[in-house]
Amino acid sequence: MSHASQLQAVLDRIDADFDNSLERLFELLRIKSISADPAFTADCKAAADHLSRDIATLGFDTTVRPTAGHPAIVARSSVNGKANPEPRPHVLFYGHYDVQPVDPLSLWHRPPFEPAVTTHADGRKIVVARGAEDDKGQLMTFVEACRAWMAVSGSLPVDITMVIEGEEEIGSKNFVPFLEQNKGEFKADFAMICDTGMWDPNTPAITTSLRGLVYDEVKIKAANRDLHSGIFGGGAQNPIRVLTRILGGIFDEDGRITIPGFYDGVKDLPPDILAQWSKLNLTPESFLKPIGLSIPAGEKGRLLIEQISSRPTCDINGIFGGYTGEGSKTVIPAEASAKISFRLVEGQQPDKIRKAFRDYVTARLPGDCKAEFADHSSAPAVALDWNMKPLAAAKRALSEEWGKETILMGSGASIPIVADFKRTLGLDTLLVGFGLDDDNIHSPNEKYDLKSFHKGIRSWARILAALADAAR
Amino acid sequence: MSHASQLQAVLDRIDADFDNSLERLFELLRIKSISADPAFTADCKAAADHLSRDIATLGFDTTVRPTAGHPAIVARSSVNGKANPEPRPHVLFYGHYDVQPVDPLSLWHRPPFEPAVTTHADGRKIVVARGAEDDKGQLMTFVEACRAWMAVSGSLPVDITMVIEGEEEIGSKNFVPFLEQNKGEFKADFAMICDTGMWDPNTPAITTSLRGLVYDEVKIKAANRDLHSGIFGGGAQNPIRVLTRILGGIFDEDGRITIPGFYDGVKDLPPDILAQWSKLNLTPESFLKPIGLSIPAGEKGRLLIEQISSRPTCDINGIFGGYTGEGSKTVIPAEASAKISFRLVEGQQPDKIRKAFRDYVTARLPGDCKAEFADHSSAPAVALDWNMKPLAAAKRALSEEWGKETILMGSGASIPIVADFKRTLGLDTLLVGFGLDDDNIHSPNEKYDLKSFHKGIRSWARILAALADAAR
Repeated sequence: MSHASQLQAVLDRIDADFDNSLERLFELLRIKSISADPAFTADCKAAADHLSRDIATLGFDTTVRPTAGHPAIVARSSVNGKANPEPRPHVLFYGHYDVQPVDPLSLWHRPPFEPAVTTHADGRKIVVARGAEDDKGQLMTFVEACRAWMAVSGSLPVDITMVIEGEEEIGSKNFVPFLEQNKGEFKADFAMICDTGMWDPNTPAITTSLRGLVYDEVKIKAANRDLHSGIFGGGAQNPIRVLTRILGGIFDEDGRITIPGFYDGVKDLPPDILAQWSKLNLTPESFLKPIGLSIPAGEKGRLLIEQISSRPTCDINGIFGGYTGEGSKTVIPAEASAKISFRLVEGQQPDKIRKAFRDYVTARLPGDCKAEFADHSSAPAVALDWNMKPLAAAKRALSEEWGKETILMGSGASIPIVADFKRTLGLDTLLVGFGLDDDNIHSPNEKYDLKSFHKGIRSWARILAALADAAR
Repeated sequence: MSHASQLQAVLDRIDADFDNSLERLFELLRIKSISADPAFTADCKAAADHLSRDIATLGFDTTVRPTAGHPAIVARSSVNGKANPEPRPHVLFYGHYDVQPVDPLSLWHRPPFEPAVTTHADGRKIVVARGAEDDKGQLMTFVEACRAWMAVSGSLPVDITMVIEGEEEIGSKNFVPFLEQNKGEFKADFAMICDTGMWDPNTPAITTSLRGLVYDEVKIKAANRDLHSGIFGGGAQNPIRVLTRILGGIFDEDGRITIPGFYDGVKDLPPDILAQWSKLNLTPESFLKPIGLSIPAGEKGRLLIEQISSRPTCDINGIFGGYTGEGSKTVIPAEASAKISFRLVEGQQPDKIRKAFRDYVTARLPGDCKAEFADHSSAPAVALDWNMKPLAAAKRALSEEWGKETILMGSGASIPIVADFKRTLGLDTLLVGFGLDDDNIHSPNEKYDLKSFHKGIRSWARILAALADAAR
C-alpha cells in the first residue's frame, strides 16, 4: 500500500491532536536543561529521562545512554526484528535536548522555563520559552509526526533510529566520542536533522551548506596583580589596551579579515549560483531592519546573502577586563580576555584557522605580555550533495505542505555534527527545519511560531511518506 | 614655650601608645565603608559615626554632617573661643573614610575587613585590610599625632579643622557642593592631606604636583537585541568589533595618544627639573619588576618617571560585552562598553579632553551604531607652589624623622579635592603621606607598612611642631 494513501488521515490526526502536541512540548520546555552550567546537570538528566519515556510510548526501543557528559537518548523503531518484506530506507534522526543559558534574565518578558503561547506584535501566535525553537520545538515536530503515523497506521513509513544528545550547545565534546564508540548502532541510509530555518515565514527551505566554526578564547596577561592607574598609568602595560589593539586590527576598512592566510582556499560562488542568489533578493530591508540595522557589515562588494552564508566571518562574542561594575575604578587590570569565533566555508581548515588566529595575536604581543588560549570548539564547513536522493523527495513534500517552492539554501550557522556523521558513519544529512530569523535563539525571549510547530509536524509526516514512496 | 621642647615627650608617648593606636586603626578598618556600592550605605554612616566619636575624645568639636551622599565629619580644635595670645597657623586637614570595593574577593589572602598584622615576604610587618593605606591608615597617622599632642601638652601646636569625607573613591560628587555651601566653616591658612606616598620605604616625600583625571564611559549600541552569530555573523554589525577598533586606535606605535588635540598645552619639563629627575634613577628594575613587568609602556623617548608623573596618559579601566561566562556562546551582543580614564597634566583642560575623546569615538562610529557616554569624574592637574612656607617646615620635620633628605616629587595620581580647595577656599595644600608603591591600594590584599603607620604618626607630630615654630 502506498503511504500516500494514508497520509491524509495522518495529517488530520495531527490537526486533531495539536493541543496535546503543544502540551507535550511545554512539558519538555519546563525542564531547565542548560548544558553549559553545571548547576543544571540534574535538569539535563531529567530532560533526557522525560524525552526517553515519551519516545518509548511511540513503540521505540528507547534507552538513556551515559556519556562522559550529559546523557544521550537512543531510540530504534524496528523492535520486532522482523525482516521487512521490501527494502525500506533507514533514517538516523538527530536532535538535542539541551538549551543555551538564559542570561541576561532581566531582558526576558516572562520566565524562560514557563512556556506560553502569546501573540507577536504582528499578530502571529508564538511559543515563548528557552528552547522553544532550538532545539526542543524543532525536534518535537519530528517526534509528533512519528506519533501521528503510529496512531493512524500502527507503523512508520521508514525505519528510524533517533539519537538525541544533551551537549550540542557546548560543542558535543562528549557526544562525538560516544558516536565513535558505538557507531555500529547508528547504521542508516542517511541522517536527518531538524535544527535549521525556513527561507521566510511562508517559504520552506532545505539547507544544503553550513559554515564551519572555530571558537577560541584569548587571555592577555601583563602585571602580576591589578594596579592603580594613577600610580602606574603610563608606566605599566595595560592588557585591555593590548587586547583592543590586537582585536581592533582584525578587520580592515572594507570589512575583510586581516589575519594572514584566513582566505586561503576560499572560492567565489559559481556564477550560476550567484545569479540564483541575486534573484532571491535578500535585502537589508528584509533581513536587517527587524533587528534595528540597515547596513550590511560584512565584506564590501559582496551580496548580503554571501556575507551571511558563503563567506567566512569573524565575530568577537565576548570581551571582559578590569572594572565593569557601577561607577568608576581607576584600575589597570592584570588581565583581559575575549571569546572569538570564526565561521568557515568550504576550503578552510579549522586547525589552520585557529593557528593563524593565535599566531596573529602572538605576533602582536608587546613585551611583558603573555597570551593564553582556550579551544572551545571547531567544525569544518559542510557542503551537502544537492543531488542526494532523499533531498528531492523532501523538497517535494515540503512544497506540498507550504504551497510554495522549497528553497535550497546555504546557512551561515554551523551544525558540527553533520561533519561528524559524514566522517564517523559515512552518512549524508538532510537538513530541514522551521526556524525563523526572528526566533531569538540563544537570546532572551526565544520563540517558535505556532505555525512552524504545527506545519513542521505536518511537513515531517509528509516527508516520511515521500521518502518511503521514493524508495519503492 | 617652643613646641620643639615638648616634642620628644610627644614622640615617646606615640611609641608607648602604639599598640593602642593600632587597635584604633583596626576598629575603623573593620567597618565596610565601600562608598561605591549602595549595599554599604549604612556601613559608611557607621564609619563616620565611629570616627566622629573618636575624634571628639581629642577635645575637638565634632559633628557628622549630612551631604546629598555619604556624610562628612567636621571637627574643630579651637573650642574654647579664647583668642590666641599669638597668631597660630590654622590648618585644614582633609581625609576620607570611604574605601574601594573589594572585588575580586577570591584574590584576597584573608578577609578584607578583618585587619591583621602579618609579615611581608621580605620580612616587613604590614597591616592587611581594605583601607589599610587608602585612606584609613593614612588619616589615622594624623589623628594619632593629634592625640599624642593632646595627651602630653593638653593642646595642639596649631589650630586644626579636620574634614573627613565619605565619597572620595567615587569622585566626591556630593562633598564638593557641601564644601561650597559651607565654605565659611573651612577658613584656614592652608590645607594638609595624608593620601600620598613616600619616595621609597626609607625616604620621605612631599608631593608637589598631581595629575588631573577625566573618567568617561562609552557604550556602543548596534542591533536591537543579541543575535546568533551563525545566522547574522557577517551581515550584522558587532559592537565589540566597533569598540575594539576604536579603542585599539587610541595609541600609536610609540605609545602616544592619537586623539586630536590631546597634547595641546602640554609642556616638556624644564631642563633643570628633568636633570634632577634623571638623577633620581627610577628604573624599570625598581618600579616595574615588583609588579612582574620590565618594559615602560608609556611614550617612547621619555623617562619612566616622566611617563608616570609628568606626562598625560590614557588607560582603559574596564571593558565588557557579550558572553563572558564559562565555555562558549555564539552571540553578537546588542551592545558593548568600556570605562576609560585620562591622567592630565598642567595645561590640559578636563572638559576639552572629555570632548576630544567623545569626538574621537563619534567620528569613528560606523553606520548603524550609536555611542552613549557617561561622565564619571574630572579634575584638572595641580602644580603646587614649591616655595609655599609650610612646605619648608614640613620638609625639615620629615627629614629629621626619617634621617634622609625629603624628596619633592610629582605624583601620577589625582587628588581632585586639591583643586577644589584652591578654587573654593583659596587654599594651597601640603601633601604628605606614607604610602608605598606595593601597598596594593584599590587591589586585593591592600596593606600599609607598620613602619609607615608608626613613623607616619611621629612625622605628623614633628610637622605640627615645625609649622607652629616656623610661624613664630
